[in-house]
Amino acid sequence: MLQHPPAEPGMREEDVETPALLLDLDAFEHNLDLMASLLAPTGAKLRAHAKTHKSAVVAHQQMRRGAIGQCVQKVGEAEMLAWGGIPDILVSNEVVGPKKLARLAALAKIAKVAVCIDDESQVAACAAAAEAAGIRLTVLVEIDVGAARCGVPPGPPAVALAEKIAASKHLIFGGLQAYHGSAQHKRAPEQRATVIAEAAEMCRRTVEQLRQRGLDCPIVGGGGTGTFLHEAGSGIYNEIQAGSYAFMDADYARNQDAPPFQQSLFVLGTVMSRSIAGVAVLDAGHKAVAVDSGLPLVWQRPGLVCTSFSDEHGKLEVRDGATPALGEKLRLVPGHCDPTVDRYDWYVGVRKGRVECVWPIGGRGAMA
Amino acid sequence: MLQHPPAEPGMREEDVETPALLLDLDAFEHNLDLMASLLAPTGAKLRAHAKTHKSAVVAHQQMRRGAIGQCVQKVGEAEMLAWGGIPDILVSNEVVGPKKLARLAALAKIAKVAVCIDDESQVAACAAAAEAAGIRLTVLVEIDVGAARCGVPPGPPAVALAEKIAASKHLIFGGLQAYHGSAQHKRAPEQRATVIAEAAEMCRRTVEQLRQRGLDCPIVGGGGTGTFLHEAGSGIYNEIQAGSYAFMDADYARNQDAPPFQQSLFVLGTVMSRSIAGVAVLDAGHKAVAVDSGLPLVWQRPGLVCTSFSDEHGKLEVRDGATPALGEKLRLVPGHCDPTVDRYDWYVGVRKGRVECVWPIGGRGAMA
Repeated sequence: MLQHPPAEPGMREEDVETPALLLDLDAFEHNLDLMASLLAPTGAKLRAHAKTHKSAVVAHQQMRRGAIGQCVQKVGEAEMLAWGGIPDILVSNEVVGPKKLARLAALAKIAKVAVCIDDESQVAACAAAAEAAGIRLTVLVEIDVGAARCGVPPGPPAVALAEKIAASKHLIFGGLQAYHGSAQHKRAPEQRATVIAEAAEMCRRTVEQLRQRGLDCPIVGGGGTGTFLHEAGSGIYNEIQAGSYAFMDADYARNQDAPPFQQSLFVLGTVMSRSIAGVAVLDAGHKAVAVDSGLPLVWQRPGLVCTSFSDEHGKLEVRDGATPALGEKLRLVPGHCDPTVDRYDWYVGVRKGRVECVWPIGGRGAMA
Repeated sequence: MLQHPPAEPGMREEDVETPALLLDLDAFEHNLDLMASLLAPTGAKLRAHAKTHKSAVVAHQQMRRGAIGQCVQKVGEAEMLAWGGIPDILVSNEVVGPKKLARLAALAKIAKVAVCIDDESQVAACAAAAEAAGIRLTVLVEIDVGAARCGVPPGPPAVALAEKIAASKHLIFGGLQAYHGSAQHKRAPEQRATVIAEAAEMCRRTVEQLRQRGLDCPIVGGGGTGTFLHEAGSGIYNEIQAGSYAFMDADYARNQDAPPFQQSLFVLGTVMSRSIAGVAVLDAGHKAVAVDSGLPLVWQRPGLVCTSFSDEHGKLEVRDGATPALGEKLRLVPGHCDPTVDRYDWYVGVRKGRVECVWPIGGRGAMA
């Protein structure tokens, strides 16, 4: 069931019903502007990742600042964006199964869509979906540049798969998907630089081999919030797929020497109990804020530390007499922004203590 | 946005769109029947916890087998159940804030509702909401029986709070909330027995002191799937608040000497990549299956082991040549059932390989 919006424009932040997903609009807009200005001199374009924000409202603001399109991981996310007017969408992931491919191909009538493969059998599957829909589908080859999750090896296996795509009259070879997920959270900047230099070299070699076989490579895509300056500066990646930069989280904040994106995403919780000495309990547990990348932080309240989160309770340790009032509202910085957003139906946009907007998260739960 | 149902009745399980939340109906019904038969000789009644299932459809099946009502943690969950025809609902948790209390009091016109407090200031807050709604609200005192999260100490502090409730003409003292959360997952049965024996003694002492002050204690509630036989056999707890027993999960399966509830809840995923040697990747990551209590298990496929879950990818290690086919569908046993259910809009009920029903999860995302 869709949940009611927890706020209305004009309301004070402390009157927002909790738990709620807050977006600090000043910080959010700063982040979008900063990304645009960082990428401008590199020549690489932003194809922002909607797996983070799950919202056409956010996507349009990224597009207005120069993003050339959006990435998604799921067909349901692509549908949400296409229905919301986003004209260029890459599923930066494999889509397996005829029904999902049919849904994706159907979108090609209203938006430019593309998808990735890493298995030869998917060439025929994509071609069948494209033929049935009466469209030509753009297909990228995902290569494994070190994350060891999905993707064929760079070089000859990637070229062989690209040739099979190009040989289908129902498909268009769209380029290489070369995202290195596990590099994003390496803490030391030199580690991130080294790993992405290797990934870029794998891309360069593969693009050269494609060219030798007469295949142009329109997209070389990758790069997340932790590493994108390296991909953008590589001279070979031409599309950056960062998503978290718009919101940030406690885990990205642990990266050293990162660009100065600001924390814009918060979960607002209410103190619902303080009966136990040295403890305060929030009405936001891990159903309300993702804990897969660690516990949240309490924003600008140094005496309050998250110690354990259960389904509906966030337990805080109270230090130095910093006991909050019963009913007091506190901002939490999520450990991980993407899965936190995915638990909510609404963003509550706030500026200078007031609710300015309430935006739907149309892709909430779009897993298929 | 509400997601489309991933299946239709009559469909084969392998045709269900993924990720999907499967309910094995034979196992589910076995679990409901087993709980009813285990509690029958004890005299304790089941007030099943809807924080687990979030669905009036499941609640009604528990009620038909003798449950006297339902527990919830949130007002939004209480609304979902009351609107769905459940007649007796206890918010086994504190509700702080006038709007939420007004919503709860409004429900008292269509269902019997009760709520817990652990702070004196909440007596006036509850009374104001009840008076405004023109009802008398039943209020329980939560006591801390060892979990050190919410609740006043047992004995005199609990009695003092109960007297304040009873003194309000807008409130009815409903009894004691005495749930011990952290006891549920103690692995050794004697540990669970010891901890709940202590909790029961705290309840007994408090009930006796209430009686000395002329206060009857209609409800003494607590007990989860890990410990409920101890509460039910204590002679002092009269309402059992178990929820997970209906579904089970990998974490509860690690308890020793537990009652033979069967795993009925699964996340169905599709193998979307197997390009990396020794690895298979499912289209279900931790947005699709909660990892707060550990990674899921692959059901009845001993050669496949979950090794890491990211937002949309579940990475499996393939042992002994057990490589699954691309597109093959696998069942996962969630590490933790409650937050996994909360990510879905629909249960897909299956029996003997066929989809028998699709049930809405009306309380999905009901956090406020």
